[in-house]
Amino acid sequence: MSDVLVRHPRLVSLEGGEGAGKTTAINAIHECLRAHGHDVLLTREPGGTPLAERIRGLLLKPDEDIAGEPLSAEAELLLVFAARAQHVRQVIRPALQRGAYVLTDRFTDSSYAYQGGGRGLDPAWIADLEQRAVGLLPGLTLLLDVDVAVGRARASSRDLFPDRIESEHDDFFQRVRGVFRQRAAQDPRRFALVDAAQTQARVAADVVAHVEQWLQQETPA
Amino acid sequence: MSDVLVRHPRLVSLEGGEGAGKTTAINAIHECLRAHGHDVLLTREPGGTPLAERIRGLLLKPDEDIAGEPLSAEAELLLVFAARAQHVRQVIRPALQRGAYVLTDRFTDSSYAYQGGGRGLDPAWIADLEQRAVGLLPGLTLLLDVDVAVGRARASSRDLFPDRIESEHDDFFQRVRGVFRQRAAQDPRRFALVDAAQTQARVAADVVAHVEQWLQQETPA
Repeated sequence: MSDVLVRHPRLVSLEGGEGAGKTTAINAIHECLRAHGHDVLLTREPGGTPLAERIRGLLLKPDEDIAGEPLSAEAELLLVFAARAQHVRQVIRPALQRGAYVLTDRFTDSSYAYQGGGRGLDPAWIADLEQRAVGLLPGLTLLLDVDVAVGRARASSRDLFPDRIESEHDDFFQRVRGVFRQRAAQDPRRFALVDAAQTQARVAADVVAHVEQWLQQETPA
Repeated sequence: MSDVLVRHPRLVSLEGGEGAGKTTAINAIHECLRAHGHDVLLTREPGGTPLAERIRGLLLKPDEDIAGEPLSAEAELLLVFAARAQHVRQVIRPALQRGAYVLTDRFTDSSYAYQGGGRGLDPAWIADLEQRAVGLLPGLTLLLDVDVAVGRARASSRDLFPDRIESEHDDFFQRVRGVFRQRAAQDPRRFALVDAAQTQARVAADVVAHVEQWLQQETPA
């Protein structure tokens, strides 16, 4: 059990709201790290292990047997952290221990943003779960930031079948964005804020520039 | 969000280890409460809602796609409390609010016993989850207590396919029993300890005697 939070230089997370262009950006980071000769594990949350992906299904795309049951904010938070506990122990820590970089599409900052900001749960509870069930902080977090209306317009043109989170209202996503920006402002050493209102190519280029700069500064353990 | 723990006079839980005779006992309590003219909701944990039963499947009977993935103690605890958060909000509180008794096969004491005692997780974490995700304490908890070897011999003669918890070793169940007994000793007003080494009929009779006595003492809200 790890009740402290350790910042790991080879753990990189990508965060952002709907329609921020995360897919293009994460592929560009992946390519960049590999071009530097690094072993890179690309993964995502919620998910990343068979059991955690099953939990992701309960969270985002419940089948018809359970779709009618409202998911409480508390259960949502606990499911997200159950999946993350598995992801960290089964996938992330073993990869870091063998010397690989781990690049994850979302990590704990998303819980502060969605379950804290969006659902209104106590951030002190989330911090406690982060210490007890996760214990790891990324060395670098790239936050793709975009106006909620712009991001949602992009996402809705792409998603024919929005998931349970994507079906929330604008004020929910305003709160999500607010918490992401607040966390980035509070920890500028870890966060790089990227203007995701730009074209996908420009966002990817900015993201890669941040990663290149970070690789020069950091001396990975 | 309820960050306090409220003891509800019409919430009754039955607790105990493997092979303690819970099924016979809970049916006897159910009958007893109905004989007094009460509306009774009979339920169980982990489970009690469609989503919570799905979580129960992940916990106890993982299918072959996920059976090979070791479930961490932390994820186990968080899944149990995610299921309980749903159970409390979807089933238990609405039933209590309409004036019914709720009789549940296992409740939060099982988390202290199995994930705290058995898995060695911090009881302070469990207490925090109990306050934040549950908020309810039973008015009466009947603890069926039996020697681990005796209980397991009974359970193994019944279960051809033991679940993930039932497959644990004796020292795990000794710790589970220890925590159950400790909690009963610390809160004698809520707990009734029943000697489950007796015949099932005798156990059921003892349990019903405790419920009868409790009904006379309590003045349900």
